[in-house]
Amino acid sequence: MSKIRAAILGASGYTGADLVRLALTHPEIEITALAAGSKAGQSMAAIWPHFTPYALPPLTAAEAVDFAAVDVVFGCLPHAASARLLGTINEATIIDLSADFRLRDAATYAEWYGGEHPAPHLLESAVYGLTEFARSELPGAQLIACPGCYPTAVLLALTPLLESGLIGAERITINALSGVSGSGRGLKEANLFAEVAEAVHPYGLGHHRHMPEIEQQLALAAGAPVTISFTPHLVPINRGELVTCIVELAEGQTHLSLRAALADRYAHEPFVHLLPEGQAPATRMVRGSNHAVVNAFADRIPGRAIVAAAIDNLVKGSSGQAIQNMNVALGLPETMGLEAAPLFP
Amino acid sequence: MSKIRAAILGASGYTGADLVRLALTHPEIEITALAAGSKAGQSMAAIWPHFTPYALPPLTAAEAVDFAAVDVVFGCLPHAASARLLGTINEATIIDLSADFRLRDAATYAEWYGGEHPAPHLLESAVYGLTEFARSELPGAQLIACPGCYPTAVLLALTPLLESGLIGAERITINALSGVSGSGRGLKEANLFAEVAEAVHPYGLGHHRHMPEIEQQLALAAGAPVTISFTPHLVPINRGELVTCIVELAEGQTHLSLRAALADRYAHEPFVHLLPEGQAPATRMVRGSNHAVVNAFADRIPGRAIVAAAIDNLVKGSSGQAIQNMNVALGLPETMGLEAAPLFP
Amino acid sequence: MSKIRAAILGASGYTGADLVRLALTHPEIEITALAAGSKAGQSMAAIWPHFTPYALPPLTAAEAVDFAAVDVVFGCLPHAASARLLGTINEATIIDLSADFRLRDAATYAEWYGGEHPAPHLLESAVYGLTEFARSELPGAQLIACPGCYPTAVLLALTPLLESGLIGAERITINALSGVSGSGRGLKEANLFAEVAEAVHPYGLGHHRHMPEIEQQLALAAGAPVTISFTPHLVPINRGELVTCIVELAEGQTHLSLRAALADRYAHEPFVHLLPEGQAPATRMVRGSNHAVVNAFADRIPGRAIVAAAIDNLVKGSSGQAIQNMNVALGLPETMGLEAAPLFP
Amino acid sequence: MSKIRAAILGASGYTGADLVRLALTHPEIEITALAAGSKAGQSMAAIWPHFTPYALPPLTAAEAVDFAAVDVVFGCLPHAASARLLGTINEATIIDLSADFRLRDAATYAEWYGGEHPAPHLLESAVYGLTEFARSELPGAQLIACPGCYPTAVLLALTPLLESGLIGAERITINALSGVSGSGRGLKEANLFAEVAEAVHPYGLGHHRHMPEIEQQLALAAGAPVTISFTPHLVPINRGELVTCIVELAEGQTHLSLRAALADRYAHEPFVHLLPEGQAPATRMVRGSNHAVVNAFADRIPGRAIVAAAIDNLVKGSSGQAIQNMNVALGLPETMGLEAAPLFP
Repeated sequence: MSKIRAAILGASGYTGADLVRLALTHPEIEITALAAGSKAGQSMAAIWPHFTPYALPPLTAAEAVDFAAVDVVFGCLPHAASARLLGTINEATIIDLSADFRLRDAATYAEWYGGEHPAPHLLESAVYGLTEFARSELPGAQLIACPGCYPTAVLLALTPLLESGLIGAERITINALSGVSGSGRGLKEANLFAEVAEAVHPYGLGHHRHMPEIEQQLALAAGAPVTISFTPHLVPINRGELVTCIVELAEGQTHLSLRAALADRYAHEPFVHLLPEGQAPATRMVRGSNHAVVNAFADRIPGRAIVAAAIDNLVKGSSGQAIQNMNVALGLPETMGLEAAPLFP
Repeated sequence: MSKIRAAILGASGYTGADLVRLALTHPEIEITALAAGSKAGQSMAAIWPHFTPYALPPLTAAEAVDFAAVDVVFGCLPHAASARLLGTINEATIIDLSADFRLRDAATYAEWYGGEHPAPHLLESAVYGLTEFARSELPGAQLIACPGCYPTAVLLALTPLLESGLIGAERITINALSGVSGSGRGLKEANLFAEVAEAVHPYGLGHHRHMPEIEQQLALAAGAPVTISFTPHLVPINRGELVTCIVELAEGQTHLSLRAALADRYAHEPFVHLLPEGQAPATRMVRGSNHAVVNAFADRIPGRAIVAAAIDNLVKGSSGQAIQNMNVALGLPETMGLEAAPLFP
Repeated sequence: MSKIRAAILGASGYTGADLVRLALTHPEIEITALAAGSKAGQSMAAIWPHFTPYALPPLTAAEAVDFAAVDVVFGCLPHAASARLLGTINEATIIDLSADFRLRDAATYAEWYGGEHPAPHLLESAVYGLTEFARSELPGAQLIACPGCYPTAVLLALTPLLESGLIGAERITINALSGVSGSGRGLKEANLFAEVAEAVHPYGLGHHRHMPEIEQQLALAAGAPVTISFTPHLVPINRGELVTCIVELAEGQTHLSLRAALADRYAHEPFVHLLPEGQAPATRMVRGSNHAVVNAFADRIPGRAIVAAAIDNLVKGSSGQAIQNMNVALGLPETMGLEAAPLFP
Repeated sequence: MSKIRAAILGASGYTGADLVRLALTHPEIEITALAAGSKAGQSMAAIWPHFTPYALPPLTAAEAVDFAAVDVVFGCLPHAASARLLGTINEATIIDLSADFRLRDAATYAEWYGGEHPAPHLLESAVYGLTEFARSELPGAQLIACPGCYPTAVLLALTPLLESGLIGAERITINALSGVSGSGRGLKEANLFAEVAEAVHPYGLGHHRHMPEIEQQLALAAGAPVTISFTPHLVPINRGELVTCIVELAEGQTHLSLRAALADRYAHEPFVHLLPEGQAPATRMVRGSNHAVVNAFADRIPGRAIVAAAIDNLVKGSSGQAIQNMNVALGLPETMGLEAAPLFP
């Protein structure tokens, strides 16, 4: 069988580059097109010197890609631009890493992303690709929306607990820490080394765009509307995302019930791992890999617990999950190309 | 008038060294004794090369200090060892930076610090030195207990709000981030560069020793018992501490009421500053200085708010506040020796 | 006597901000004007939140400053722009931190800085302000050119050795490491956190602009032309600069002769310190301070030695030295406002 | 065919852990024994939580390994301890990552490593495993000494140039920067985060143990004795090593001749890459991978050039090269298990 011909759109961003990194060692992927509007005509090595050793197609404009000649399109474009372009492609499986097809409701999208949805007719058919919870919908899907990085971490921590009714849907309070790569390669003063290093701060208090996405998916798990508190922080690391969620236990439950449920749910998952009692998830445990680690702890306030998860925001939180989704969608072994162990130190 | 003769015990730790740093430019302090048991006989420059330019007394054992010849003793010793030694000193004003005199209740101390309190008779008279809230008790005090670093940040954020009844004493949920200097210069694998850099993780989940101290002080402010949720994280920075507290608003209040109360309370404080509406506290705003920045935000969950504060854990959270306390205790201008602006970048 | 009225031009850059930091605690400086063209109309706290606690003049355009009402102008403008503006000021002592008045020769300037010098008539009278070697020329000077950061470190290490003939002027090979603040607050991809963190690389190989400045000053010390090898590296720190210079020993000399000469030359210097035999200069020894540390070591190749120095590029390498120069120029104690000990950790 | 049964001794160190990381995805390696004396009886996940997802043998004492049941032994033990143990193994191919079999001369070893060599009879037969230059000796070798990390970078940069006579053997001046993982997981104050972060310094000036190894190998390439100058620095990164070598050009040569020679020599190398004219090697280009990047530049001093190289000290500088050597020694494709692209950011 010939390889899967893949186009990666937005290859000049950190997410696109990480997709290229993973695709390069995926035994069934052949990268046949790389697009990045502002860098069209350049080589990947010119804008990403760490790809110097690799033969890769030159960058083109996204519109210049012959989509009839590719099997899978990975979209790493900014929101809105993503939907505008992807909405025109019919020939290939589309795996979108932007925010455009995550929200089911076009009105919510318009409220949080500042404009009409460019392709609302696709919202219904898009599969929300948190792989571990989407396996039945992925095979054969034409459009897969990869979850945001924060939602990935939160949903892995909380979905089984809400589904089983072990925790309440009220007062879910999420604290989150993210590495700087999460905000992209764009030129912002806030992302300069001297601003970020040796410093931490919260941001997006009360209005971060991942909120409605998390609420949408938690509500599906809970079978009831969910409103969350969400406090993200920028921390001086390149990669890594950590969430600690304060939840209300259902009557009679303890953090041990949560651990039991997580153990049960993730026992056979290749990429999600419950840590031993008392061991805190740490981003260093998953750096550079598609793994996630989770755990639950007693809170000092009775009737509550702390559920924590760590991922690499660029891998399980983005490019790795995209490939995991592709694997499932196309009938390949789910772990193919994603077996690399974390890079520590 | 002659200068204040100061002894610094535990000068081989980060806190002790930061006290020396500040004392060196304090116009009324003369460092007359430096103690560090394990390093007795060495010069400060030998263990802290950044003090090479400065003439300082050699290190001795703490027991070898002639306390009759000093006016102020700064204790930067480990808990228990601190109370054992300080309990024997009658001649000087004692400013303790350990945990030994922060808790009012010896039984609570024994529970959290793993042993009987070495000098319980001193607990009642010790002044809890969160300077901004202790000014009436500090002048002439013989024993001042400097707050822990996390408690300092939390109490600056929440005390005025609890005192005024704008927030409830229930369900206070504190998320916290701390730089690595907070865990000292001891040789622990967990503090090695390669373990900490490019990584974050929570720790002490449900059982961090600063919990009872925070609860004790918040209860005093609320006039009612307080049980908190507290989730600290280690972040790869040297200095800096950040807390984001999720609180329940009293009936009819909003985050704007909280901002108004903080503005009112801190309007004339030299070291505590309310940031403009919407601006998040960041550790880079206070690095190396005795300043604290605070702010309040709307939470997405109705009826709640987020109150955040940032300090330098070694300065306002430790050595700087110790000097601030000394200034007030001895009738000096409160800001003396603490005027340096934050070091950024 | 009234205070020295100071204008700081280019206050929106790291150097300008560090000057403000130091000036704020200088007992004889009153900041009366702050200029930053692109930010005119804003407050300093708006662009530098760490100045929130301080009352400072609002930012104006540099052209809008009433130079007749200031005693000292600190220029932190880009090269060329600096000379264009400063060349029009007659009323105040000018302390320029740009590269414009460091080179004595307008042709060399044109070659390395890409254009005619905007005010060549001032080159002859400008004092090259490496304070320790310019004390006789500084008092009453009208225009002082502060050395570049790399030159400061190199010249402190090598000038006494060349002047005394202990080392040769041939084959001086300088390796250098600099923190990121050295390249400013401008928006460049190369300065993004994710590009710089967890990474090092050399830059400007063979053509860094500090080369002719170093050569000019070393030649003055040697009494002969000097051509250097200079290899700077970017390292993931905010502040700090380190140079290790490989030099040829004069006949019969060893690194101990160099240590003796440095000891002799710097014995009474408040800011330059020879470390004990065998102790390597480290940037953590000087962070945030105006101090420099130097030392000499045997090289494994016979007849050579290694001379190393560390400074904080923003302080002794820039703003601190500017104030040190002002102090000497105006007859104030040289250390005034610069006494703060290094910030470690 | 059954897989290669591999034992990894010293699995509790960073080098050992990185070997495990790479071995886990090597298609022909089965890890059958893991040894770490001080941690015997523990699981790998207990001491290295990032291996939580992987099934690995428990740690034993090195002496408890049944060497008759393994095909390859990777030794990541401290020097001296390594030779003592490895000298007793006859059954398996031995790939030693310690310093014990790198030097050909037992007297030199004794001088630099402070004691008699524990197994001098093996020195002659040990193959010095800088893979690119050892391919003819590796197949069937019983004992392979993997080069040190600094030597790997230096030798890749300079060996082809010395062999071809393009540069002289005199006055080779090497400046080097290394990440902290190079000094291991041992508990040393100097490796604490707060000591290392936001700081740089040189170390081992004039007496670093990699000097004689580099000299030995450069001498072989030059056909003449070589004495080097070597100035290593510690930089606050986990992984990465960078060298910039100042070399004397042979008559009539320029840096372009060097580039041509490097291009020629490395044209078909899978892991060594000449960068385009003017592009500086950077550790971020190779992070986490077995790649090396090299380049040559004009020096400002006539008749000299700068040759630079970057590697990941734990991969090409250690564990990756060990596997590369194993591949060649056992007749496997040289790149097997080492194809992963660098991790950036």
